[in-house]
Amino acid sequence: MNGKLYGIGTGPGDPELMTLKAVRIINECEVIAAPRTSGKNTAALNIAEQVCDMSRKEMIYMDFSMGGADSDELHERAADNICKALSEGKNAAFLTIGDITVYSTFSYIAEIVERRGYETELCPGVTSFCAAASAAKRSLTEKDSPLVVIPSSCGEIDSLLDIRGTKVIMKSGRKITEVRRLLTEKGMTDSAYAVCSCGMADERIYEDISELPDSCGYFTTVIAEDISHE
Amino acid sequence: MNGKLYGIGTGPGDPELMTLKAVRIINECEVIAAPRTSGKNTAALNIAEQVCDMSRKEMIYMDFSMGGADSDELHERAADNICKALSEGKNAAFLTIGDITVYSTFSYIAEIVERRGYETELCPGVTSFCAAASAAKRSLTEKDSPLVVIPSSCGEIDSLLDIRGTKVIMKSGRKITEVRRLLTEKGMTDSAYAVCSCGMADERIYEDISELPDSCGYFTTVIAEDISHE
Repeated sequence: MNGKLYGIGTGPGDPELMTLKAVRIINECEVIAAPRTSGKNTAALNIAEQVCDMSRKEMIYMDFSMGGADSDELHERAADNICKALSEGKNAAFLTIGDITVYSTFSYIAEIVERRGYETELCPGVTSFCAAASAAKRSLTEKDSPLVVIPSSCGEIDSLLDIRGTKVIMKSGRKITEVRRLLTEKGMTDSAYAVCSCGMADERIYEDISELPDSCGYFTTVIAEDISHE
Repeated sequence: MNGKLYGIGTGPGDPELMTLKAVRIINECEVIAAPRTSGKNTAALNIAEQVCDMSRKEMIYMDFSMGGADSDELHERAADNICKALSEGKNAAFLTIGDITVYSTFSYIAEIVERRGYETELCPGVTSFCAAASAAKRSLTEKDSPLVVIPSSCGEIDSLLDIRGTKVIMKSGRKITEVRRLLTEKGMTDSAYAVCSCGMADERIYEDISELPDSCGYFTTVIAEDISHE
């Protein structure tokens, strides 16, 4: 019988924010498929291995780029390796930081794996933006307000910031100068805060985003609360 | 020494989607503060007690209305009971379904409790919309697309549905007729699906929202993927 591919959200960084289900499935799987960026950065794996015993796992490293702009060929190659393990009857856990359905590469791989006739299952995780708001002891959204989550690669950040409700700008690191300029122009800096590397050893919370360094790193979440419409 | 108030997201329904941290904190707290609606519905408590031993806990039930339109007086009364326990040196865990920062009553109570000089800490959880997308084996959002989360009580659902990206309409149950009419008018029904009572015993996934019954219940998440802009 073929194995099954599990897509697992490991949560944003603190291994204690992994779900009971994620830990159980990882422990039960023989194969771990872990994204690796810049040839070395395995953020999701680093989280999981602090809680799960990885010593006897068969590892599949997938060399993706940050931000997910990978070629179809790269996805096919990752799927090849995973399907080989599944065809040998092994279950595999594909790890992704945060939640498995939010800006994850898993969906591309899962589509290929399913097309080839294998079964998949998803296990959700805590998102970085929920953890960032918690770390800053803030409510992300309340009452009848919408919540708008914007990846920093999005072309419409400017107009989306005008929507009523809280705006989350994910993975702001590489665009921090532009994000700060937009928030300043719109008079939104007083209601904005940022969390870098939430739940990781180098976590930092900036209540004043003018203090956020240009070198704040990829895992930076900027959250602009909505005070203008209240 | 005074106790501390922990705000805990228990995840959307499946007790296995609780985080390791949520389970640890609940087990360590002497006091559990659980919202109760309609005098009997304690959804967050029902989730937690499947995993944590509640037999020796001091319980504080908080009679809130669904949707969070409660009076300041009701919040003050809940805070009174919690602060009494904190002043006796007991730690208290305030349970909320899903994540603690997303449309939770916790923020109102925490504000009062902090104003009275007590310490608080938040523990995030898996949101219903992430779990709903996982249950339906869908990606919630990809690449440079925004994600818009809309409570069904929001007045601007119509215009928010026109934004590029995935739209999540939370707690759609009571407004399902209106939500379905809007999605139909906008030609979005083909790309929409719904999950009722995600992770609970009566979970149901509707790939076709025209099949969604008018009686689908409070915990219904409608998700409209964005195919028009692709």
